[in-house]
Amino acid sequence: MTLTGDVTLTDHHCHGVTAADLDRPGFEALLGEGRRGSFDSALGLAVRRWCAPVLDLPPHTGADAYLARRADLGWREVTARLLGAAGTARWLVDTGLPGGLTGLTEFGELAGGETGEIVRLEQVAEQVVAEVGGTAKAFDRIEAAVRERAVGAVGLKTVVAYRTGLDFPLTDTPPPTLAPEHRLSDPATLGWLVGLGARLGAELGLPLQIHTGFGDPDLRLQHADPLLLTDFLRATAHTGLTVVLLHCWPFHRNAAYLTHVFEHVRMDLGLAIPHVGRGARTLLAEALELAPFRSVLYSSDGYGLPELHYLGAVLWRDALGELLDEWLADDVITTADAENLVSTLAHGNAARDYPFSGTSRKPKPR
Amino acid sequence: MTLTGDVTLTDHHCHGVTAADLDRPGFEALLGEGRRGSFDSALGLAVRRWCAPVLDLPPHTGADAYLARRADLGWREVTARLLGAAGTARWLVDTGLPGGLTGLTEFGELAGGETGEIVRLEQVAEQVVAEVGGTAKAFDRIEAAVRERAVGAVGLKTVVAYRTGLDFPLTDTPPPTLAPEHRLSDPATLGWLVGLGARLGAELGLPLQIHTGFGDPDLRLQHADPLLLTDFLRATAHTGLTVVLLHCWPFHRNAAYLTHVFEHVRMDLGLAIPHVGRGARTLLAEALELAPFRSVLYSSDGYGLPELHYLGAVLWRDALGELLDEWLADDVITTADAENLVSTLAHGNAARDYPFSGTSRKPKPR
Amino acid sequence: MTLTGDVTLTDHHCHGVTAADLDRPGFEALLGEGRRGSFDSALGLAVRRWCAPVLDLPPHTGADAYLARRADLGWREVTARLLGAAGTARWLVDTGLPGGLTGLTEFGELAGGETGEIVRLEQVAEQVVAEVGGTAKAFDRIEAAVRERAVGAVGLKTVVAYRTGLDFPLTDTPPPTLAPEHRLSDPATLGWLVGLGARLGAELGLPLQIHTGFGDPDLRLQHADPLLLTDFLRATAHTGLTVVLLHCWPFHRNAAYLTHVFEHVRMDLGLAIPHVGRGARTLLAEALELAPFRSVLYSSDGYGLPELHYLGAVLWRDALGELLDEWLADDVITTADAENLVSTLAHGNAARDYPFSGTSRKPKPR
Repeated sequence: MTLTGDVTLTDHHCHGVTAADLDRPGFEALLGEGRRGSFDSALGLAVRRWCAPVLDLPPHTGADAYLARRADLGWREVTARLLGAAGTARWLVDTGLPGGLTGLTEFGELAGGETGEIVRLEQVAEQVVAEVGGTAKAFDRIEAAVRERAVGAVGLKTVVAYRTGLDFPLTDTPPPTLAPEHRLSDPATLGWLVGLGARLGAELGLPLQIHTGFGDPDLRLQHADPLLLTDFLRATAHTGLTVVLLHCWPFHRNAAYLTHVFEHVRMDLGLAIPHVGRGARTLLAEALELAPFRSVLYSSDGYGLPELHYLGAVLWRDALGELLDEWLADDVITTADAENLVSTLAHGNAARDYPFSGTSRKPKPR
Repeated sequence: MTLTGDVTLTDHHCHGVTAADLDRPGFEALLGEGRRGSFDSALGLAVRRWCAPVLDLPPHTGADAYLARRADLGWREVTARLLGAAGTARWLVDTGLPGGLTGLTEFGELAGGETGEIVRLEQVAEQVVAEVGGTAKAFDRIEAAVRERAVGAVGLKTVVAYRTGLDFPLTDTPPPTLAPEHRLSDPATLGWLVGLGARLGAELGLPLQIHTGFGDPDLRLQHADPLLLTDFLRATAHTGLTVVLLHCWPFHRNAAYLTHVFEHVRMDLGLAIPHVGRGARTLLAEALELAPFRSVLYSSDGYGLPELHYLGAVLWRDALGELLDEWLADDVITTADAENLVSTLAHGNAARDYPFSGTSRKPKPR
Repeated sequence: MTLTGDVTLTDHHCHGVTAADLDRPGFEALLGEGRRGSFDSALGLAVRRWCAPVLDLPPHTGADAYLARRADLGWREVTARLLGAAGTARWLVDTGLPGGLTGLTEFGELAGGETGEIVRLEQVAEQVVAEVGGTAKAFDRIEAAVRERAVGAVGLKTVVAYRTGLDFPLTDTPPPTLAPEHRLSDPATLGWLVGLGARLGAELGLPLQIHTGFGDPDLRLQHADPLLLTDFLRATAHTGLTVVLLHCWPFHRNAAYLTHVFEHVRMDLGLAIPHVGRGARTLLAEALELAPFRSVLYSSDGYGLPELHYLGAVLWRDALGELLDEWLADDVITTADAENLVSTLAHGNAARDYPFSGTSRKPKPR
């Protein structure tokens, strides 16, 4: 079945786009998670194949011509076109990253659709530490700040995988003092912070997103295996919390296992899907081996380049359509069930898990 | 090549079925390894697609109608039909699980075919401890009990993956005392117990099955990676013991590597195959990348629901048939070699490895 | 697209062949990385399918007839035919293995094409220790010996994965003394040795090959996960060194991630490709999910049997051709880009990374 833009998506985890025109090094740095030369990849092929037509170019246009057209149109027009073409009705945006990105309001105006905010715990905590220093009372201030930010937000997020890794200590008790670090790295503090997120998430009905798997170079990937969360998931299993494992690749089968054994756990294939091009069908098939259908969400994890938000959507639809065609051809599923499954994965699961309260916006006329 | 029920299987690792009618929560709990809602999964689709016709329903019948029909027929009739439809000539049954399951005799009567018993080491040891308490002499009593149970059995099994994990200590010496635990968890005791299984398995010609990979929620999956057995496999390589790695997913490539480098090691894809639906072809292909054909066995790991025993058989045949069709189309293998390979995997390897001595039974007339 | 022998390859990592006729046990030992019976595998099928015709036999000839013909022709003729049929223009040969293998000159005469030498660090160090004993001054002697051997070589290699594993200590300082081991195993010494390789590789423009993943039985595979190299790769990222991760299976997705985040890192699928038969397409697809195209090299890792050098080439071409056909059918890539990609992977990347200076030789007339 060909899934068209009529299958509206909830992109339950993405970031803003760079609010500036980009030269080739700047573009490629964002394309490659910090690495140059990355037009030379499955992702580069996908940009040329899928994004070029959105900018009125033929499919497979070369990198230079693509970037020239992109510069002609300007970043606002390019962003509005690509985000608009994604067929995404709801965007949940992690606003905790620095770097000249669009804020939530501006992103919503460019993208159209409804937006909601995901609050990054480490960013809130580090902002508190920057203001009050690293004392024992900082812990209360952090909780207060997270509570304040959570008003109107739709979810919380932790990037502890980048810091101590996912085998952080399980604790509800803060350490005696909080070290005045610009970038928090103390395991005891981070373990407490994730525990705070779990407690507030359960109390306020906000899913807790956890970065796992594939990410920037400042990661030890083996410390981002979601299996390291097993004890944390066991501890939060009956608290009312929903945990969402983000990205997961190359540990997506491990993540699928966790969604299978823990009813409060979800997973997605964000970041991976836009990067792997045609490989997306394999990833989706591997995730759906064991993951209950109610536990798999869509996200792009788009960051910086609206190409990523768009490719996430296009490649996900393409991959799911192909997989379901195979299932239909092999009489694995009925057409009616397949159509239901598409809705479930595209937006139904997210609608159930997240407390939408964002504002819907029409894109500004170009 | 379409593999029909004429390709008789040896299901070298399964469990009994629940000897009672089940309501929907009870059924779903067994369908989902302890998790509710699991009709909503690849496994649920497979039950509706494949099992419904065995109960005289159309393929893809909905969950409620399926369960209603199941209740009408009663668990005995349903079990006899599904086990009978599996085309399995030999069933090796792990009898060490509690929970209202059919015993070996009753299972054999319902299933037809030959049965053999797999003795679970931890269950025997825990029974001894319950009787004599946890003293030093318990070790001798455990060995005696295992020897007694081994008479007439066809294999031994350990679930140490669920206890200390697969990096248990290698030792032939018991610790000074045995702690009186209801559920053994002391690494030194468990290491000794696995060593006992290896020693007796070599002496008595009984393969030692080891749970690896995917299982119930009370597992830390990363501790069930069969690679953690490398030193144990090295130590048992020339003792005459055959080791069978059960389930393996998502570490089935690791298991395949171990069967490649250790001649006395076997693997299967039990439990995974019935759960992953159409994904079975991928798993089988990944296992056969490196595993010698003589080292791969069939099992369902069916437990509780006869649907699992049946689906294991149906999906395994389906997956192997599809894979071999691809190989034939690509001139990878001849038809004669493909037919031999089917027999080897379906029952030949098990016939070589296990000392069958069970009784063959006709199913009782319904 | 069918990739024929016209697509010339650079086999950037292989070994010599056994300079003797082999009986069946001898052949099977080399076929199975030390394990008997391995005609009974994907690799065995591939030998019968692909190599038999090179020896004038029909495809799928049985093992006995194949070996009889092989004996009739003699190892020199068989080697010249199989290496010649590989369509490999450049062979980079690790000369550091014992065991009656052809030396570089003889290999080049039999194979035709250009040869270059890869210097195995552990072999050089162990030779020094054998000569001067294990004193503190041995470290200087080792450096001098590596420098001497590096003259005219095209790369360095470490097999530290087989010794302490890939989590060796990062250090530029040798330990106080060097233990007089026949086979180096001291982590501090090995860590220093790898550091020496990294330093000299950067200085002399020689890539450093690192064994990762699949290998002989004397490996703990979990210690060969290339993710364990993350800190080493971070430390060498801007030194001018090129690091090549060899083999990688079953961690090839992890390796691909490392090539994605570190610009100086390359990977291959050597050893795996000849072993997995039709599975090669899957491995290549999984590697190219995330690896930049500039970072993937071809190798066979052929060792002992020229069948392995040949199958590496044939199966790699077959797999890449099939994958690109799928991409072309799905409009993922243009024909021109696909053709460029073939050249890049087949020899272009190796030509850029290795300082070829070897001698080109015509095969001797048979």
